[in-house]
Amino acid sequence: MVGYRDKTVRLIRSPEAEELYREVRDLPIIDYHCHLSPEEIYEDRPFGNIGEIWLLGDHYKWRLERGFGVDEELVTGSADMKSRFRAFAETVGYAFGNPIKDWVQSELGFFFGIDEPLNRETADRIWDKANAAIAENAMSPRKLMEAAGVKYVATTDDPCDDLHWHDLIAADKSFGIKVVPSFRTDRLVSADKPDYAAYVARLASAAGVSADTFDGFKAAVRARLDLFVSRGCKFSDVGVEGFPSAIADDEAAARIYSDIINGKRVSAEDVDAFKGAVYLFLAREYAERGMVMQLHLSVARNCNSRMFAEKGADGGFDCVADPVPTASVRAMLDAMNNAGALPETIIYSLNPTAYYPLTTLAGAFRRVHIGISWWFCDHERGMRETLDTVGELGHICSIVGMLTDSRSFLSYTRHDYYRQIVCNWLADRARGDKDRAAEVAYRLCYGNAAELTEEK
Amino acid sequence: MVGYRDKTVRLIRSPEAEELYREVRDLPIIDYHCHLSPEEIYEDRPFGNIGEIWLLGDHYKWRLERGFGVDEELVTGSADMKSRFRAFAETVGYAFGNPIKDWVQSELGFFFGIDEPLNRETADRIWDKANAAIAENAMSPRKLMEAAGVKYVATTDDPCDDLHWHDLIAADKSFGIKVVPSFRTDRLVSADKPDYAAYVARLASAAGVSADTFDGFKAAVRARLDLFVSRGCKFSDVGVEGFPSAIADDEAAARIYSDIINGKRVSAEDVDAFKGAVYLFLAREYAERGMVMQLHLSVARNCNSRMFAEKGADGGFDCVADPVPTASVRAMLDAMNNAGALPETIIYSLNPTAYYPLTTLAGAFRRVHIGISWWFCDHERGMRETLDTVGELGHICSIVGMLTDSRSFLSYTRHDYYRQIVCNWLADRARGDKDRAAEVAYRLCYGNAAELTEEK
Amino acid sequence: MVGYRDKTVRLIRSPEAEELYREVRDLPIIDYHCHLSPEEIYEDRPFGNIGEIWLLGDHYKWRLERGFGVDEELVTGSADMKSRFRAFAETVGYAFGNPIKDWVQSELGFFFGIDEPLNRETADRIWDKANAAIAENAMSPRKLMEAAGVKYVATTDDPCDDLHWHDLIAADKSFGIKVVPSFRTDRLVSADKPDYAAYVARLASAAGVSADTFDGFKAAVRARLDLFVSRGCKFSDVGVEGFPSAIADDEAAARIYSDIINGKRVSAEDVDAFKGAVYLFLAREYAERGMVMQLHLSVARNCNSRMFAEKGADGGFDCVADPVPTASVRAMLDAMNNAGALPETIIYSLNPTAYYPLTTLAGAFRRVHIGISWWFCDHERGMRETLDTVGELGHICSIVGMLTDSRSFLSYTRHDYYRQIVCNWLADRARGDKDRAAEVAYRLCYGNAAELTEEK
Repeated sequence: MVGYRDKTVRLIRSPEAEELYREVRDLPIIDYHCHLSPEEIYEDRPFGNIGEIWLLGDHYKWRLERGFGVDEELVTGSADMKSRFRAFAETVGYAFGNPIKDWVQSELGFFFGIDEPLNRETADRIWDKANAAIAENAMSPRKLMEAAGVKYVATTDDPCDDLHWHDLIAADKSFGIKVVPSFRTDRLVSADKPDYAAYVARLASAAGVSADTFDGFKAAVRARLDLFVSRGCKFSDVGVEGFPSAIADDEAAARIYSDIINGKRVSAEDVDAFKGAVYLFLAREYAERGMVMQLHLSVARNCNSRMFAEKGADGGFDCVADPVPTASVRAMLDAMNNAGALPETIIYSLNPTAYYPLTTLAGAFRRVHIGISWWFCDHERGMRETLDTVGELGHICSIVGMLTDSRSFLSYTRHDYYRQIVCNWLADRARGDKDRAAEVAYRLCYGNAAELTEEK
Repeated sequence: MVGYRDKTVRLIRSPEAEELYREVRDLPIIDYHCHLSPEEIYEDRPFGNIGEIWLLGDHYKWRLERGFGVDEELVTGSADMKSRFRAFAETVGYAFGNPIKDWVQSELGFFFGIDEPLNRETADRIWDKANAAIAENAMSPRKLMEAAGVKYVATTDDPCDDLHWHDLIAADKSFGIKVVPSFRTDRLVSADKPDYAAYVARLASAAGVSADTFDGFKAAVRARLDLFVSRGCKFSDVGVEGFPSAIADDEAAARIYSDIINGKRVSAEDVDAFKGAVYLFLAREYAERGMVMQLHLSVARNCNSRMFAEKGADGGFDCVADPVPTASVRAMLDAMNNAGALPETIIYSLNPTAYYPLTTLAGAFRRVHIGISWWFCDHERGMRETLDTVGELGHICSIVGMLTDSRSFLSYTRHDYYRQIVCNWLADRARGDKDRAAEVAYRLCYGNAAELTEEK
Repeated sequence: MVGYRDKTVRLIRSPEAEELYREVRDLPIIDYHCHLSPEEIYEDRPFGNIGEIWLLGDHYKWRLERGFGVDEELVTGSADMKSRFRAFAETVGYAFGNPIKDWVQSELGFFFGIDEPLNRETADRIWDKANAAIAENAMSPRKLMEAAGVKYVATTDDPCDDLHWHDLIAADKSFGIKVVPSFRTDRLVSADKPDYAAYVARLASAAGVSADTFDGFKAAVRARLDLFVSRGCKFSDVGVEGFPSAIADDEAAARIYSDIINGKRVSAEDVDAFKGAVYLFLAREYAERGMVMQLHLSVARNCNSRMFAEKGADGGFDCVADPVPTASVRAMLDAMNNAGALPETIIYSLNPTAYYPLTTLAGAFRRVHIGISWWFCDHERGMRETLDTVGELGHICSIVGMLTDSRSFLSYTRHDYYRQIVCNWLADRARGDKDRAAEVAYRLCYGNAAELTEEK
């Protein structure tokens, strides 16, 4: 199957933008940060219906329905899938201004050739048409990825993961898309969590070393990093609410580590400084391996504890947190840089009020980039805000490019969405310099990410 | 008298917006949060002149004049009203970009049929015309409200208030507009103020109970709430600079309360946690009574203490405060929700930098709304920012609707202003779906507020 | 030489804006805050080439090149100037959205009559043309200033400076532009810096008094202020990351001062409160002398300590800091006002998230202004954000006007850039009131600054 490339939502605003868009629209997709399941990619089971693809795991959509007042039974409950689809169709019909409204329309257009707006009245017709297309094409994860022109995917993996799904994918020569793991350190740095000692024990066991001491912990991390890198891993990632405001030296870190592992009471200051030491240690390891360090800041998880208890993580109860003190990020980058341990870095803030300090901070170091708007921020205005800020305070060419950050195989049309926004933005500023604008569009839509992932 | 509906300031930008506007322009007004005086509504004394209506109590206008350099004598001093009016007219003539410039023009258009711009040159002519219209129609509070199509007004009242003006209004069958009190708890939660014990004593006396203990305090609050609800009260409200970062349990709250009431020294941490306990207690009471909890955050009061000493509160010396830590709001909503005590809630931030975290936070709970921009923020760009943020990060239909927050009977034209902005916003995003856009316009301009106030 | 006034970058968007622009385009320039060197102005040595003018001291340009990935050798290293110019030309060619792209184009147009876009392909041709014009006109600092229509320049000077370059300029009757010093107190308030005692000793020596006590310190400051004022100084200035959150009384300040000067250990709280006392003291001195107090907030200096060690200050490693707690600024203004010591004040925040609280705070006091966007913020969107915020929350006429904040003699075209932005902004809001819009344009582009500097 191929995608209906002319049936995505149109954001293009000028003939100049259209011209730029024609040149980047069909470029391959390098998706260097997403949450696709390597198991699902390997298994490649055909989907049953459009509801399954859209509504089983996408907390963006669940939130939208709750905001519209849909009963939880129809959101994540046991209602039948067609009823759930109808509820979502009605919700999205009224969701003016929400990017999900555009995304679902682009997905219907691109993958199913459906260009009718989704809403209460069209829900049943679209349900039938989409499901017929799914059946006819035996649509499966890999087919969707191939239709979208995906070339490279970096999934998000826990350092304890044995990567066997990645191994199976890599061994399958019938599949041409490169799928590599990313090193996600949320739990590795969360020394304040009650299960930290248990997590570290699991990591040590996976690495086949003892992690009784901080040196052991480091050895375990290095072993896991080596495994990940041997499987093509290029990116690390961490998604956190705050950021350490201090960095313990090795001796202090070793002492605090030992206290934490042994269940002693540790002060908040010590935990903070220990975390700082872990960030610095990780950065050096990344730099040595030529890896990219991604920092996703200001993410508040599971803010509704009652619903978290009921539905678990990723249920649509995460929030934009307060901006992190960028003075802490500044001190950390400076410490890494002083130690010769600053890897290529991409900083993302879920709270846009930190864009100015972070963008200027990125400009004070080499190879530190601002990531494009993601999650709650990757709507058109949000994307433009990143382009504006980086363009005004830094150099627009320093933007690495789009990532989906998604759990859904249909989300690849967000790259098309992003490409249109980039082309509009550039066309408004090109002042007749079409060639150079086209070069920049190429970089932001494909070239920079291809270079970073060595896929060029 | 009737309003000149086609003489308000025009913000409409497209034929599609015009079409939407035609459908909502004349809908009744549900003003669920304002500072109108029930005494003035009851007394209904005809106004003497336009200066009196505009310049006696409107600190928005005083600030604008001070920013233009007008002598205080002409702002709030003893200058004669015509001179004051002239000074204001000159100020507003130059106040490009300020919503007051549009508001006064809409008010002149709608209530007086005057469509000439107000400025130094037109001041005397407009003074004469407006005053002639006031005299001819014997314009009074009720007449202005009726002309504006007001259906429901929730005033702002102290829990100690005996509501007798409300009783008098309700008893007057000649007046068709519903005027109900709101429960404003600024003083009830301000346990750090030196007059807190005295305030609580007054509350207890009004309730006819003893408030020597925290249980007594609660009983007093419940008694006042019952009275307010019996008079149609549906909304509570609090306007604060910060937000409690902790919640004392009942035992601790009782101890701290007792210390405060007995004039003992109480630590800042204890006061903070006590406030948290009061917020949680109030929420439960609101939830039990089906009331709406409004939180107005980041309001700094009386920032110029010299002028405060001279002019008193509401003199135009309040400011936008730093954003509250939304992690505190998050913890509070979660605690309320866990306790089954989370009422229908509307959160407003006077500092727009908190919109992203608060909007996503609202989306993590049921029946928590983001309030439309108010006070310093209810200019066109500010309104659009709320619509954008809620539309992008939540569901646009979750916006309850416009409120005036005003002390002036002419301010009802702000609903027209808002309706035009909503229609522009929707028209830009409707993509041909006129019917659904019209439905959303109806909800945001009237339907949602009518439903919430049960006026539908 | 005269400037090519019709060859600057065009931002004008409507005939109405064009009309306003025609009236302000050629007004003289009052540059009340810049970093031009009085020595260079006095010496007035002709420039050698365009690279020298642009690339020897402009850290804005260096940052842009680093963001594009240019080798440091070509940025601030020992590469020959023509190679450096080529690297910059290539960088700027791709720098869509960055104001530097517009600024260099305006500078090439205005001073050299070159209207070809600067980029890799045109670099050599423009190098030749510009250098020919430099040679032909023997272009020098004064000639550039005269061509730009500059009337008044306030440089930035350390209180220890003996101002002899200023004296020499003033004595040179052949030069008609007024060049006066400004009192820059960064080091005077930085009581937390290790070299504070040494700095104060130097100040005392310059003043010919002993600064062993806080009273001596004050006497020294007063003596330097008197000298500065006698040389035409009208403006003070301070650029800081944070802001004091407390104000020590005189006795406490004297004690803390003594401890600092004598090398004793002083707590962070004490240093903070001491700084507060210095701010309050300075404000009173400014007020008594009719000076203007400028506060430049949220500036983080030398964030890359490795590059700072290598390149020194002003190398392009400064950043936008987190927003200062505006509650501290509020308490300070209130204290100054209560003490009758609040001078005419201009507050600038490098972090735009503080615009709302600061603009409303300015509105709570007389003669407190919000400064126009500067440094990282003086791009078109940034300027519009200041105009919007002041227009919406205050009175647009309270904006003092443009400043260059620059180290380059070519930067005067930024006034043209600003004037176009102002005219677009006003034209969009004028609603037919051309005369009044023109009056406001005049004030914001010249009149207000002329009045403040008594150059009117």
